[in-house]
Amino acid sequence: MTPTDPASRAYAEALDAADPLGDLPHRFVVADPELLYLDGNSLGRLPVATKARLAEVVDLEWGSGLIRSWESWIDLPMRCGDLIARSLLGAEPGEVVVSDSTSVNLYKLAVAALDARPGRDAVVTDDDNFPTDRYIVEGLAAQRGLEVRMIETDPVDGPDLDRLSAAIDGRTALVTLSHVGYRSAAVADMAAITALAHDAGALVLWDLCHSAGSIPVELTASGADLAVGCTYKYLNAGPGAPAFLYVRRSLQESLRQPIWGWFGQRDQFAMGPGYDPRPDIRRFTVGTPAVLGVAAVEEGVKVLAEAGIDRLRDKGRQMTGYLIELADRWLAPLGFEVASPRDPDRRGSHVSLRHDDAWRICRAYIETAQVIPDFRAPDRLRLGPAPLTTQYVQVWDAMDRLRRLVEAGTHLSYGSERSRVT
Amino acid sequence: MTPTDPASRAYAEALDAADPLGDLPHRFVVADPELLYLDGNSLGRLPVATKARLAEVVDLEWGSGLIRSWESWIDLPMRCGDLIARSLLGAEPGEVVVSDSTSVNLYKLAVAALDARPGRDAVVTDDDNFPTDRYIVEGLAAQRGLEVRMIETDPVDGPDLDRLSAAIDGRTALVTLSHVGYRSAAVADMAAITALAHDAGALVLWDLCHSAGSIPVELTASGADLAVGCTYKYLNAGPGAPAFLYVRRSLQESLRQPIWGWFGQRDQFAMGPGYDPRPDIRRFTVGTPAVLGVAAVEEGVKVLAEAGIDRLRDKGRQMTGYLIELADRWLAPLGFEVASPRDPDRRGSHVSLRHDDAWRICRAYIETAQVIPDFRAPDRLRLGPAPLTTQYVQVWDAMDRLRRLVEAGTHLSYGSERSRVT
Repeated sequence: MTPTDPASRAYAEALDAADPLGDLPHRFVVADPELLYLDGNSLGRLPVATKARLAEVVDLEWGSGLIRSWESWIDLPMRCGDLIARSLLGAEPGEVVVSDSTSVNLYKLAVAALDARPGRDAVVTDDDNFPTDRYIVEGLAAQRGLEVRMIETDPVDGPDLDRLSAAIDGRTALVTLSHVGYRSAAVADMAAITALAHDAGALVLWDLCHSAGSIPVELTASGADLAVGCTYKYLNAGPGAPAFLYVRRSLQESLRQPIWGWFGQRDQFAMGPGYDPRPDIRRFTVGTPAVLGVAAVEEGVKVLAEAGIDRLRDKGRQMTGYLIELADRWLAPLGFEVASPRDPDRRGSHVSLRHDDAWRICRAYIETAQVIPDFRAPDRLRLGPAPLTTQYVQVWDAMDRLRRLVEAGTHLSYGSERSRVT
Repeated sequence: MTPTDPASRAYAEALDAADPLGDLPHRFVVADPELLYLDGNSLGRLPVATKARLAEVVDLEWGSGLIRSWESWIDLPMRCGDLIARSLLGAEPGEVVVSDSTSVNLYKLAVAALDARPGRDAVVTDDDNFPTDRYIVEGLAAQRGLEVRMIETDPVDGPDLDRLSAAIDGRTALVTLSHVGYRSAAVADMAAITALAHDAGALVLWDLCHSAGSIPVELTASGADLAVGCTYKYLNAGPGAPAFLYVRRSLQESLRQPIWGWFGQRDQFAMGPGYDPRPDIRRFTVGTPAVLGVAAVEEGVKVLAEAGIDRLRDKGRQMTGYLIELADRWLAPLGFEVASPRDPDRRGSHVSLRHDDAWRICRAYIETAQVIPDFRAPDRLRLGPAPLTTQYVQVWDAMDRLRRLVEAGTHLSYGSERSRVT
């Protein structure tokens, strides 16, 4: 008999039994089955295959192959970029490359865009954008005398088209936003916002950190110009693994990034005088790629590609919906408020819950309940049940432990002073 | 009886037997004892300890610890920087941090220096500087309308003080040079050149890629302002491991770098509005550090610290001297010319040999003689017997195989068309 009460654990078990991606969580290292990990949106789990691949890169390619292994390493950032482009971003081979950190990539592509729109002196972004995005824009504004139009964004629903439309005009060189909000998980309307920018002659730079690997990204179909994203969240590539960047092919030859490193140079090993950028996506790379990191990206993306981003999206929609359903029943009476969009099509794969005591609850949750969520200032508990690595029963268990903890007042014995949380 | 003929293999064996660092090559993975590796100056060998450390970071810290491991990872780039500062660079804790690639670090510090010298519009560098250094400077010159004074440098002896002196004046904002030349291994006079720059009110940015871990670098004693360097050569941190940067403490609070990422932000996890750079060396960092790479840097530097940079310098001086002695006897009659300084105090830990047929010889050397040197355009065979990982008999064997190969004309059957070499 199929369980009919969503609040019963048997219901969650039935969802797992019917999950077409139900085998995939077992492709990841789970050292402690009692630990519930709802922070795949900060640092994804370790794929079993990645352990073996990294050992191979270290022992065989570096240890035995030594410098000779550059014959294969040299193409890795492009090859891995192609895989990301096709399987996750709705983009073409040759439009994505793995390189540097998200922040450095944002800087490079923002400068490329600004230089491509001489005479325009405004950048549009929003106040709910991820901090590093806002800081990078602020730094460029300070250097170049730009006006930053920081539009106010609803902390639950994400960027508002009317406010954006009012802010984008003939002075706007660049619009840069997150595709999925890092706190709210709100999905921005990439196609509509890109069209607004293009109508005004501006370029658009998307931050895909919280969407790549979590929801389908349709860069080509949306007409997007530029994008960056990280690989240590939903791409499960490990702490500080290198980021990726996207430049629409038709823009590649006309754009120049500002950091003229030797990996962006045509005929790199001629080591000649005079920088002559490569004619392709590699002109947006700079220095020697982080080989171990790129190899881990490739392994991580392979698992996602096998699952298929559309199926992952279906599971993410259903799983976050299930989490919200339990939150409404169990947590709303305890002072929690859902702070992510209720429309599953407008929500990424994590859910924020607002609570006045969010910080203390977060500490108690980690230290007494064997659950790892994360906290986002000022009052959000952020729960990221990554669809690739999470089971429905884990969502049920996590929500159950949360309501018990708050009902028991366990968090009240924790101090409210905040320390470091990543 | 001590062998007295340097041209005998027994002489090399005796040097190894007397080598106080003779045990250290065994701390590195040697998959094929027949292979002679003279390219530690391009990609250093894999330390045995690094294999274990990387497995621990992957399996335990990432796999089991997950996001909680950031509690220790967060300090790793500073801790590792402190170790580099003290053991290799003659600098103080808090003056070095591991971050990004060498090229990105060069860009950040060059911009910081240029911004600190408003009204000055010239940069001095030399035509023998590593390509990425020249390209980065060229890019900045294009963006900011600077004059690049590219001084001519002797391809064997390195930067000339008189020419530098003539090029540095009141318009000079920045002087940037390599401490050890990537082809010639010539050591620039860091203290004298820094003094020249300071007399004119300019700042100096040193590239330590070919000196860090190879010869003592006396940043504090030389009065150096800024420096960058890579970790995958003499620091043995693996392909594409992150680079380091140095900013003299007294300059840290007054300099700003241009890429305002969240890891440079004071109170980073408050995620507040407005970039407020940290008051210390971390303001020169940008995005999430490459944790695997930084861990490998730390392990690599530990072995160097244990050996001691002064003892490594002694061995490097003696070993390159021995190589030159054999080259003079065996190779000069075959058309080779030593293209590195003969004064051991003016030479780093590699030796360049010029030959008209260098490219073909390099190919044949790798493919038929089980030796890995590298080639540097247009006509240099570059031999890097890293003192930490190389034995004197390996130098003898490598030079012996080289003379036999050229005597036999083996290289003549190779094409002269160049393909990719890293």
